[in-house]
Amino acid sequence: MEESKPTARELALTDEVKSHRKAGHPIAPLLLNRWSPRSMTGEPLPESELMALFEAARWAPSCNNAQPWRFVYARRDTEHWPLLVGLLVEANRIWAQKAAVLLVVISRKNFEYNEKPNRTHAFDAGAAWENLALEATRRELVVHGMAGFDYDRARSELRVPELFEVMAMVAIGRRGKREDLPPKPAAMEQPNDRRPLAEIVHEGPFPAPVA
Amino acid sequence: MEESKPTARELALTDEVKSHRKAGHPIAPLLLNRWSPRSMTGEPLPESELMALFEAARWAPSCNNAQPWRFVYARRDTEHWPLLVGLLVEANRIWAQKAAVLLVVISRKNFEYNEKPNRTHAFDAGAAWENLALEATRRELVVHGMAGFDYDRARSELRVPELFEVMAMVAIGRRGKREDLPPKPAAMEQPNDRRPLAEIVHEGPFPAPVA
Repeated sequence: MEESKPTARELALTDEVKSHRKAGHPIAPLLLNRWSPRSMTGEPLPESELMALFEAARWAPSCNNAQPWRFVYARRDTEHWPLLVGLLVEANRIWAQKAAVLLVVISRKNFEYNEKPNRTHAFDAGAAWENLALEATRRELVVHGMAGFDYDRARSELRVPELFEVMAMVAIGRRGKREDLPPKPAAMEQPNDRRPLAEIVHEGPFPAPVA
Repeated sequence: MEESKPTARELALTDEVKSHRKAGHPIAPLLLNRWSPRSMTGEPLPESELMALFEAARWAPSCNNAQPWRFVYARRDTEHWPLLVGLLVEANRIWAQKAAVLLVVISRKNFEYNEKPNRTHAFDAGAAWENLALEATRRELVVHGMAGFDYDRARSELRVPELFEVMAMVAIGRRGKREDLPPKPAAMEQPNDRRPLAEIVHEGPFPAPVA
């Protein structure tokens, strides 16, 4: 396997990101370049590109290397596509129906070697998801995580066993034009900001709530 | 803020990783270069370096951009260090006591705007953790996530409110020599492998268990 060379998204911030995000400390451009566009062209993705995204997820860290993450997916205009699109809430379906691939992230709740609860299974699945999102970003693909879908129907219609938990859905595709989105998602089509670092980091015990 | 240039860890696989890991599809070298060493020198980290790691976590994606992740940390040889070291199980303490920083990842269980349960809070906190781990990796730091600690004591001694959940602990430091580790962790001091992609990815509904 040939090594992958750094792509433009790893070398510098895009103008779009620069105009909406300011990092307070210097970090990998790829981490800032990742955001969640909604406009996609509907074009298919080559199998090799899709598999590279899952490969990225595969190398995430997990407690005891349990690798609790599982991915179930459907490609646009194939047999299982209607099932996955049909799980989305309307506000997501109006744009995510133009994805090349929809996937459901699922996580195993217990360790396989002893069937005891794996306390970090969701946390570890989130690490795998972020790897997938970053690999998609460096390939200039849209990758957009969603919790706006019917979790109960996802479990029943995808036949997810009780031992597993449905985590999130993800839309992946080639970037489309903002103008091609319906008005509501078009209005949100830009990188979002974050709360200040001081609100999420604290030296010492958990900070007492502000009175 | 000046943009951060790609580092050696983003440009190519280390020899150490090459001899233990084979990606089945070409992915960002940084994702493969991240693993979880245990040997650390005990040297302190500059504040600017530590803050850059939290900055990386800050830009992770989350449902409704809720950013549920919180980080509580202690630097080696400072007031709160004994508290954090004291939470670890012995098997982790023997090596993690040489970290520069120990931190606890905590996540808010409800959305702030309506106090309804945030289904993806742990999953999203995991994405933030992976960003932190990747930023540490590109800086050639050791970053090692741990579930081997007393979660109940972490909650009580760190005064974590009920509305939040303790996710994991993380040891961060400068890489040390394998020979300086006690025998048990020394035997594990190499990048680990992963299960095949075919076991975690499936097109269509969840695969039926093998009979």
